[in-house]
Amino acid sequence: MKKGFLITFEGGEGCGKSSQIKLFVKYLKENNFDYILSREPGGSSFGEEIRNILLHSKEDISALTEFFLFCASRCDHVEKIIQPALSEGKIVVIDRFYDSSFAYQGYGGGLKVDMLKEINSKATGGLTPDLTFLFDLSYEEGFNRKSKDDKLKDLDRIEQKEKAYHEKVRKGYLELAQKEPERFHIIDASKTIEEINKEIIKIFLKKYKNNY
Amino acid sequence: MKKGFLITFEGGEGCGKSSQIKLFVKYLKENNFDYILSREPGGSSFGEEIRNILLHSKEDISALTEFFLFCASRCDHVEKIIQPALSEGKIVVIDRFYDSSFAYQGYGGGLKVDMLKEINSKATGGLTPDLTFLFDLSYEEGFNRKSKDDKLKDLDRIEQKEKAYHEKVRKGYLELAQKEPERFHIIDASKTIEEINKEIIKIFLKKYKNNY
Repeated sequence: MKKGFLITFEGGEGCGKSSQIKLFVKYLKENNFDYILSREPGGSSFGEEIRNILLHSKEDISALTEFFLFCASRCDHVEKIIQPALSEGKIVVIDRFYDSSFAYQGYGGGLKVDMLKEINSKATGGLTPDLTFLFDLSYEEGFNRKSKDDKLKDLDRIEQKEKAYHEKVRKGYLELAQKEPERFHIIDASKTIEEINKEIIKIFLKKYKNNY
Repeated sequence: MKKGFLITFEGGEGCGKSSQIKLFVKYLKENNFDYILSREPGGSSFGEEIRNILLHSKEDISALTEFFLFCASRCDHVEKIIQPALSEGKIVVIDRFYDSSFAYQGYGGGLKVDMLKEINSKATGGLTPDLTFLFDLSYEEGFNRKSKDDKLKDLDRIEQKEKAYHEKVRKGYLELAQKEPERFHIIDASKTIEEINKEIIKIFLKKYKNNY
């Protein structure tokens, strides 16, 4: 079924991935690549309803409940947006995908990552990104950037979680990358915006060409 | 962890289980049993947010997305309401539990029931009802009752699904019951309200006493 090329952007809070996605998508547009941009949680309009609950509900929910909500959102997203675009041969760029669940609810929330992987594979129908950019940054630098941009009071529920949690997430992401070195490309997010943009385009072109 | 007694009520639309739950709970109250009454989807206040999406969203979602939403709702419900009440030794009565997912999304929606069972067991932490009353009724009789009560235009998204779907659900429920005859008690829902109420109390007392 899959024919296109799936690229996901992953990383902790304040890592700069959103700015880089904008630049990368600008590049795709200017060079006439056929692409779509999406995000998780959300993506589909039903997924956005779930996103709203996930990020803004005042209820304190467990990592496992959170994980199942992400699976619901992701399942809808894959069925309605991602898989149809890939079938048409498009490049699909997503701001976060399932690695976020493994890093946040698994490594961060203490759930067994193997169990999450098994359940997640049912939600995605076994779909795997062709390329995943992991933005790696220390907690301090990420938090400082985020605070400067958003002011502390605007941080959402997940962002407010404490330092130890975010460090477990960072370590988790690096372990995930280590297990799939072919799929992951780790970006040192302390580099300049221009340096990172160039690196992303270079890696994308290399992988994309190899794919065809 | 579990010490109390978990009773679930299952069945298709218009089977009369809600009226019977009211009568049964009245009996528990009058006879000084320590109990709580809950429902699915919903149960916890977070679960009620999900219930609202599940029953009233205008988006057309797949059976699999629906199933993951039920898992999220159920996970929160088990953690915050069911398991704590059972740990205190209470009788927990629920209007629908996981058998509904197997019957509706599995048998009705065409998903593999074994896969659903496996994923569901993660959401519930392996919790199983001590007793499940299954209200069995033909589609025609259930639909006639429901229409009389609610008027056709008020039927919710799930209730509007067509006859073939509801017949698959009915058959599915009966298969589930056949596989766990110790847990299930099948009620002929065409009997009178008084007859069914007596039957439920009789079966409950027998099972509850055997449990202690």
